[in-house]
Amino acid sequence: MRPDGRNPDQLRPLHLERGFAKFAEGSCLIQLGDTHMMVTATVEDRVPPFLKGKGQGWVTAEYSMLPRSGRQRNNRDLMKPNGRSMEIQRLIGRSLRSVIDMEKLGERTITVDCDAIRADGGTRCAAITGAYVAVYDAMRWMIEQRMLKQIALREPIAAISVGIYRGIEVLDLNYDEDSQAETDMNVIMTGSGKFVEIQGTAERDPFGADTLGRLLKLADKGVKELVEAQKKVLAE
Amino acid sequence: MRPDGRNPDQLRPLHLERGFAKFAEGSCLIQLGDTHMMVTATVEDRVPPFLKGKGQGWVTAEYSMLPRSGRQRNNRDLMKPNGRSMEIQRLIGRSLRSVIDMEKLGERTITVDCDAIRADGGTRCAAITGAYVAVYDAMRWMIEQRMLKQIALREPIAAISVGIYRGIEVLDLNYDEDSQAETDMNVIMTGSGKFVEIQGTAERDPFGADTLGRLLKLADKGVKELVEAQKKVLAE
Amino acid sequence: MRPDGRNPDQLRPLHLERGFAKFAEGSCLIQLGDTHMMVTATVEDRVPPFLKGKGQGWVTAEYSMLPRSGRQRNNRDLMKPNGRSMEIQRLIGRSLRSVIDMEKLGERTITVDCDAIRADGGTRCAAITGAYVAVYDAMRWMIEQRMLKQIALREPIAAISVGIYRGIEVLDLNYDEDSQAETDMNVIMTGSGKFVEIQGTAERDPFGADTLGRLLKLADKGVKELVEAQKKVLAE
Amino acid sequence: MRPDGRNPDQLRPLHLERGFAKFAEGSCLIQLGDTHMMVTATVEDRVPPFLKGKGQGWVTAEYSMLPRSGRQRNNRDLMKPNGRSMEIQRLIGRSLRSVIDMEKLGERTITVDCDAIRADGGTRCAAITGAYVAVYDAMRWMIEQRMLKQIALREPIAAISVGIYRGIEVLDLNYDEDSQAETDMNVIMTGSGKFVEIQGTAERDPFGADTLGRLLKLADKGVKELVEAQKKVLAE
Amino acid sequence: MRPDGRNPDQLRPLHLERGFAKFAEGSCLIQLGDTHMMVTATVEDRVPPFLKGKGQGWVTAEYSMLPRSGRQRNNRDLMKPNGRSMEIQRLIGRSLRSVIDMEKLGERTITVDCDAIRADGGTRCAAITGAYVAVYDAMRWMIEQRMLKQIALREPIAAISVGIYRGIEVLDLNYDEDSQAETDMNVIMTGSGKFVEIQGTAERDPFGADTLGRLLKLADKGVKELVEAQKKVLAE
Amino acid sequence: MRPDGRNPDQLRPLHLERGFAKFAEGSCLIQLGDTHMMVTATVEDRVPPFLKGKGQGWVTAEYSMLPRSGRQRNNRDLMKPNGRSMEIQRLIGRSLRSVIDMEKLGERTITVDCDAIRADGGTRCAAITGAYVAVYDAMRWMIEQRMLKQIALREPIAAISVGIYRGIEVLDLNYDEDSQAETDMNVIMTGSGKFVEIQGTAERDPFGADTLGRLLKLADKGVKELVEAQKKVLAE
Repeated sequence: MRPDGRNPDQLRPLHLERGFAKFAEGSCLIQLGDTHMMVTATVEDRVPPFLKGKGQGWVTAEYSMLPRSGRQRNNRDLMKPNGRSMEIQRLIGRSLRSVIDMEKLGERTITVDCDAIRADGGTRCAAITGAYVAVYDAMRWMIEQRMLKQIALREPIAAISVGIYRGIEVLDLNYDEDSQAETDMNVIMTGSGKFVEIQGTAERDPFGADTLGRLLKLADKGVKELVEAQKKVLAE
Repeated sequence: MRPDGRNPDQLRPLHLERGFAKFAEGSCLIQLGDTHMMVTATVEDRVPPFLKGKGQGWVTAEYSMLPRSGRQRNNRDLMKPNGRSMEIQRLIGRSLRSVIDMEKLGERTITVDCDAIRADGGTRCAAITGAYVAVYDAMRWMIEQRMLKQIALREPIAAISVGIYRGIEVLDLNYDEDSQAETDMNVIMTGSGKFVEIQGTAERDPFGADTLGRLLKLADKGVKELVEAQKKVLAE
Repeated sequence: MRPDGRNPDQLRPLHLERGFAKFAEGSCLIQLGDTHMMVTATVEDRVPPFLKGKGQGWVTAEYSMLPRSGRQRNNRDLMKPNGRSMEIQRLIGRSLRSVIDMEKLGERTITVDCDAIRADGGTRCAAITGAYVAVYDAMRWMIEQRMLKQIALREPIAAISVGIYRGIEVLDLNYDEDSQAETDMNVIMTGSGKFVEIQGTAERDPFGADTLGRLLKLADKGVKELVEAQKKVLAE
Repeated sequence: MRPDGRNPDQLRPLHLERGFAKFAEGSCLIQLGDTHMMVTATVEDRVPPFLKGKGQGWVTAEYSMLPRSGRQRNNRDLMKPNGRSMEIQRLIGRSLRSVIDMEKLGERTITVDCDAIRADGGTRCAAITGAYVAVYDAMRWMIEQRMLKQIALREPIAAISVGIYRGIEVLDLNYDEDSQAETDMNVIMTGSGKFVEIQGTAERDPFGADTLGRLLKLADKGVKELVEAQKKVLAE
Repeated sequence: MRPDGRNPDQLRPLHLERGFAKFAEGSCLIQLGDTHMMVTATVEDRVPPFLKGKGQGWVTAEYSMLPRSGRQRNNRDLMKPNGRSMEIQRLIGRSLRSVIDMEKLGERTITVDCDAIRADGGTRCAAITGAYVAVYDAMRWMIEQRMLKQIALREPIAAISVGIYRGIEVLDLNYDEDSQAETDMNVIMTGSGKFVEIQGTAERDPFGADTLGRLLKLADKGVKELVEAQKKVLAE
Repeated sequence: MRPDGRNPDQLRPLHLERGFAKFAEGSCLIQLGDTHMMVTATVEDRVPPFLKGKGQGWVTAEYSMLPRSGRQRNNRDLMKPNGRSMEIQRLIGRSLRSVIDMEKLGERTITVDCDAIRADGGTRCAAITGAYVAVYDAMRWMIEQRMLKQIALREPIAAISVGIYRGIEVLDLNYDEDSQAETDMNVIMTGSGKFVEIQGTAERDPFGADTLGRLLKLADKGVKELVEAQKKVLAE
């Protein structure tokens, strides 16, 4: 049994809210159970030095947790880029770049800020799912500003965790499940069901190819539901 | 005329929301126009080294602005303590300590985290006003936990800015007003109308004693309204 | 009774010495009792990026205490900008800028270095009082160099602390008084008696408007004496 | 065709050398083509604070590249933990911990240092493969010192990269291949063929489940060969 | 000819002033021409961890230059320990330790702070010469406090630079000479004429053994004069 | 008797290996007993700002010890420039610059990286001796690239330590000797027997001019042997 009574293949209650950050070009507040991430997308008319004059854009991400987002207060020093947060922000940036058409974007940078205000497991996956909505809205703003002709996103992208908790393969682990999971995997997929990134770790026992196959199927189900929710909120 | 049409002695629309941070012992979201601060109060069973064994508590504050809280994105490096933010968090901590009964608190530390999610001027004053509510609720939690017998706050505390904008003495300056003000003053007062801290700066022209008197009166009016709102939300 | 036997409204013995720093464009050693500050003013032919091409100058200040300026040795790490010193150097810079005519100064920066060699309370106020003399002399040097036509200072500026020590309102607190004061206020005023900055803090009990009025009068007396001393030494 | 003429499923020439670091408890120099890693294992009689008194050990890893290990000199600042190196050393430590019996190890820490002296792609995988040998030898030293009764490793572990280079699925990418790969995956497996960690990234185009299956088979072949080489060198 | 008209074997005008730092246990202001160093000696009742319980003391030094000690203002960042200043403070500490009887000192640390207020070459040598006086006075204070029975210094120590300037071997180089010297040597010697440290550098042309011999003789003459001055001021 | 049975004037076994760093323009692995240093020379087409447009080159050095180069593991933080390593890299750079013809080098920088893989005393001297070979080879590469017409080195340079160990004057101290030496001196000399740098320290007792003379003779013998070995390996 899962601690919160969910079925093994069930997501936590999901809520997406666009535009919560009044001054940002795009923003999305994503709530997945007790994991709440604020995601903003900032558009700037510059690219990093290595891209200057190449006619293409750049997308980068930053990730942090507010000191009292979790059950214990984290020292604010932990908001500085540390091993874990740098790994996560590199993952978020890389994932978004895989579905963005950089030529269409032109020589502009979109900076995606992901800040956890409540953290109950799965913050990096929630950040990616919310970032798709924030970036989409930032591109709408760019179209209004005549900086873009159309949305420069090839397809939707979303992410979810899967893992083995007490011997059962489960979808969307919360903090309690995650901290006891035997195996833990973050799967980032596109709307068309292809893999963008797979990060699987045997926390305790190495796992075989069969298990891997079943976990990826579970992730596929979860991502499909997330992509539906993204479409719905973007159509409002 | 003020940019948003307010009367010179009028506060921006005020909203206080308790408990937005599920995992914190006390929390308050304060919205004063487009200035939105999240304030949490964390209770820990320790005191800093210089207070060990003295039978009294400690209150400290940290302050930061999220990168996209303002019209421009701030580099996340600016979230590290810099001159401005250290000055502000020292002010917040000092102000709260002036109304807290440290002996009653016992050997415990309350850490107040103030994070701006939307910033339109007056964030430090909003942080203090919200912090009073967050600390009050953290003390209620302590009473439930039998750590305290009664609320260890001597009286309410709130803060507001006053200043001279285009020659007129005004209350609660927003960002546009603040950046053009001739004189700018942050006034922290108690519910009984006494001063806890006055920080007045002649941004352009030095000012005389008469002006000072009128500005302090304006602040007194604003603080009284803030204290009323604190009482109301704490009674809910 | 005050620890050193002074009357409540009496300054500590004051000594100003111009030109102690042979290589600097302007310099002043200020001794106020056992508070000794070295202040130098350096003139450079540049302005910070945000002022480039605007035809006006800039004044900035840095503040530090030598490790053995006080009764205890401070770790040299404390000479790095920390919360307290950054707050102080921002105050010194802001105060000086309020009496300097930046257009007349032209696109130049005056950097004021304030280093405590002996610290017995009131170092920030002594720094401002001494800085006026150092800047004045730096401008004399600029006139000799034909960089300026006349002194670009609108009027003198000086600073003094006032406070409530054992229930008595006193002028120019030394370290012992300061560390036990109920209320502590730094007042920066011009030669014409206007306020440039007021920073008042109720260290223990919030204070009323009457007290505030009396403290400001005491400060006014002290600043007048400091300004006299500045005039005298600059006339030598 | 691969740049160095290898078959798609062929490893680069492999050489393992034990004991190159005279003063370390265990060490291994691993050369995989032009990727040369020095790996040392240091045994210390302590555990991190979170494990004190729990009767189990700890294994941690550090990773760095010497400034002139690659074609261009890297600034030595890049030897400080940065996003990439912290991600890698977390991966190495996690992988090793999955095959080590921490109870048998007792309250001791093994620190694995991985330093690239020549870098031509695949340094993190080579580090893990070499680290198994270095840790094995450190445990032999512990047995001699009567700190251990038997080798506290459950089974061998090795790592290899696979990817898609110019449309072909290839094993063990060198730097040139890696920098142009469409998909890039690091696979860490045990001697018994189970997965310890999978990190797959679509550098350009998201990939499907079929491709994933074929890449994992290729990795399995490579890891089997690496494990054979580890066994052979440890038997010398 | 030397720029200031001195003979090749002539020191700059020397002035030693004891006790300038009222709050320090020992202090000396040393002026050697336009090189002015403030040196304080602080006595603390502790030793570094590596000496705990060994019944002996420790002496350490710190060195810095005030921003406007020289002809150009140095950024205050340069006051942080950099390559040059760390080399100098290690030299000062090592030199002093060679003449101090650490057993007699007991488990105490003397920290010597050397701060340049005017810098015209030879600051490190002046610091050592002044430090001997400051440490001597700190030990006198310790005797008064009954922490010591007698001065724990085996003999005087002083330091001077020698070098080759425009082909001539000269004593006590000032900044202008130093920056053009072909060879530059700092010599630290005891009152009895033995070497404590020799640091000789061929800035341009390597030098032979004969030159070395003559330079050391010149240094010997200078150190003798410095030791005389130390004795005289300590006898006052 | 010396711990390893050597005669007082005997070097440790010496081995020089050119080209160990495949990707570097020049490199040398130097083994002097159990002190093993990797030295690489990197050629870059730039000079530091202070040399721009002056038609001459620059040589700089960096020095570090790998964490497990010694008997104890050093924290990797100690690889960051600290007092000791900055002093050493300044010494290495200065020494090399004294024999390089900067005009011939043209506006290029050679960066010499010295990394200890095994450390048993005398690493800084070994680094200088090895660096001469690495720089020589880098210049050969420059000649091949038609960046240089001839080797821009005026003469060989090498370095060795001498000292007093248990009352005996010895050459080339290993770690055990060095840590107990009464006097310790690093001598850097040219092939023609002139001094480039002398750094002598009385670790315990100040030493006289006679001792100094004998130590320098011992160093001269050692450097001659090192220079022979450099010539031999460069002729291969």
